[in-house]
Amino acid sequence: MKTQKETVADYGEKRIIREFIAPACNPRSVSVGVGDDAAVVDFPPKKQLVISTDKIPEDLLAIQLGLMDGFHHGRYLATVNISDIAAMGGQPLGLLCTLALPDSFEIEYLKSFMDGFVAGGSEWNAPVVGGDTGWGSAVCVSATAFGAIDPGRALLRSGAKIGDKVFVSGTLGGFGTALAYFVVAQERGLRLGKEDEDWLKSRLIKPVARVNIGCRLSDSGFCTSCIDVTDGVGQSLIELAQASKARFEIDMSALPLHPATQKVAEFLNCDVGKIVFGIGLDLELIGTLTRKAEITGLEQLTYFGRVVEGEPGVILNYGNRKSELPVPGWQHFKGSAMELVRRMYAPT
Amino acid sequence: MKTQKETVADYGEKRIIREFIAPACNPRSVSVGVGDDAAVVDFPPKKQLVISTDKIPEDLLAIQLGLMDGFHHGRYLATVNISDIAAMGGQPLGLLCTLALPDSFEIEYLKSFMDGFVAGGSEWNAPVVGGDTGWGSAVCVSATAFGAIDPGRALLRSGAKIGDKVFVSGTLGGFGTALAYFVVAQERGLRLGKEDEDWLKSRLIKPVARVNIGCRLSDSGFCTSCIDVTDGVGQSLIELAQASKARFEIDMSALPLHPATQKVAEFLNCDVGKIVFGIGLDLELIGTLTRKAEITGLEQLTYFGRVVEGEPGVILNYGNRKSELPVPGWQHFKGSAMELVRRMYAPT
Repeated sequence: MKTQKETVADYGEKRIIREFIAPACNPRSVSVGVGDDAAVVDFPPKKQLVISTDKIPEDLLAIQLGLMDGFHHGRYLATVNISDIAAMGGQPLGLLCTLALPDSFEIEYLKSFMDGFVAGGSEWNAPVVGGDTGWGSAVCVSATAFGAIDPGRALLRSGAKIGDKVFVSGTLGGFGTALAYFVVAQERGLRLGKEDEDWLKSRLIKPVARVNIGCRLSDSGFCTSCIDVTDGVGQSLIELAQASKARFEIDMSALPLHPATQKVAEFLNCDVGKIVFGIGLDLELIGTLTRKAEITGLEQLTYFGRVVEGEPGVILNYGNRKSELPVPGWQHFKGSAMELVRRMYAPT
Repeated sequence: MKTQKETVADYGEKRIIREFIAPACNPRSVSVGVGDDAAVVDFPPKKQLVISTDKIPEDLLAIQLGLMDGFHHGRYLATVNISDIAAMGGQPLGLLCTLALPDSFEIEYLKSFMDGFVAGGSEWNAPVVGGDTGWGSAVCVSATAFGAIDPGRALLRSGAKIGDKVFVSGTLGGFGTALAYFVVAQERGLRLGKEDEDWLKSRLIKPVARVNIGCRLSDSGFCTSCIDVTDGVGQSLIELAQASKARFEIDMSALPLHPATQKVAEFLNCDVGKIVFGIGLDLELIGTLTRKAEITGLEQLTYFGRVVEGEPGVILNYGNRKSELPVPGWQHFKGSAMELVRRMYAPT
């Protein structure tokens, strides 16, 4: 006989804070933690505070696809928030979470979720310092991340200049490839090997915040613009170009791609650009460095374009032809991500 | 002919951030504001960061009762978050908001809401520095407030000592009285005068964060414990008593009450304690001061009890009798506030 699982309505708010949010908070990192009105955090002198909040979608695709468990769900919330601090070049200092949960939300899942949230923060030395929870008719989870940076050292989106080189901190389009594969290509019969599949799955459920790279970029003083990829590589490039009032020329032969991306593009009979520049939360840092940049510790950057003269925008250089990148990306409130992916690759 | 109102689905995420969240951000208060990955805020040297996040209920009673508009809804979100910084004695520095909104959420309401959120922050010099929004199947709004404090000066819940005096920063039970009146007593025929009604309505829709008092309490060095009342006065006292492992004796004849509280209690034929100590978000600061406390600028505090010897808990002294305060208060996930109020005052 299967026992009825305990829900948040069985526990109540105070018990949830006591058993899940309070234990998630690291007492060594804060002077005052959960259990008081607010967390108090020592702040290094003469620094600037970097702070950001991000909610993650209720209808997270990786969960709909049955690929993500509670632990990775919590880790994901921590990571996407830390990534915003990384994209500014900040050193993460802490995390808070806010959870609206329906009565039927299971305690077992909540426990895994909070374990994952704490683990995600720990990966980048960002202890959980607080949080709040309460009833919601739907699940709604968000977090706030904060960190420190030397004054004037924040990596903005707005400083790209003609001649700068365009960099990325890792492979591009892994997330978009995973969506194309798990939502569409697999259904149509494509079977990649285990290694490719594992890599694609990890793009969806275990993204990496590029904290060390962000800090090094900030320290270098040579980084003129930077953003983390959360709404597709195309959207990120457009946002850098618009904020910097600059024209980016992308060398399509220099994109750092995983072999799986090429395989999925071939199967779907589409350009890799469609997969790479569309929807996708790669969390890689994309930005620009001045020509003089010769930075140790940043050897893993790939350069895949440069800032050229002309109107603000992004031009894709295929060698034999050039084309303007249309404003792509995906917006919340404009239909579900699942529908969008299906529509993107609909048979013509 | 009535025109169809525009909704968040008509606008999309980017336009909402551009037209509502970005303009809410005060560019003079931040080095970098919305439009980048995170806000960067100058931080005074040698301070501690105080930070807290609070979600407000989706089924906010004042909205259900038809008393609260979008502006006050937004202001309320700002105020309850700032209040947590005030309860620590911190000086607020900024606010971020996170909004999950269904497709049908009206733009007109969103505009008023954000205006109110900004106005609420401004009342206590806390500029909006960032935020996030996205689709949700239900409305879910939360915020993060942060501030600065001198190291070691945070007002904790845990320092009350025998002999300390129990204070409150204003009237007690205004919120609880308003609920008893608008949910129950009015329905049963009680009609208070306009002045009383306006005052009660303001308790529900326009609470005040006690920032100046919090800062003065922190500066004084005499405040041994402090909390803001968000879940009922009884719950707040119990939390101070438990955190401090102390016994609080409350002088029931010294409670600073508004005349409306007495009138509603008489009409409902109940003890004022039931109204004052139960459910309620007064946002007044409650805490303890050492005997030596003689602080200028804190004349508005009312003393209504003291810390006595004995087991941790709260004892109510009615003069001719004493009774132990049961653990009251209201917990999210344990049924709606509306139901709770109706049940509290159900005819026997």
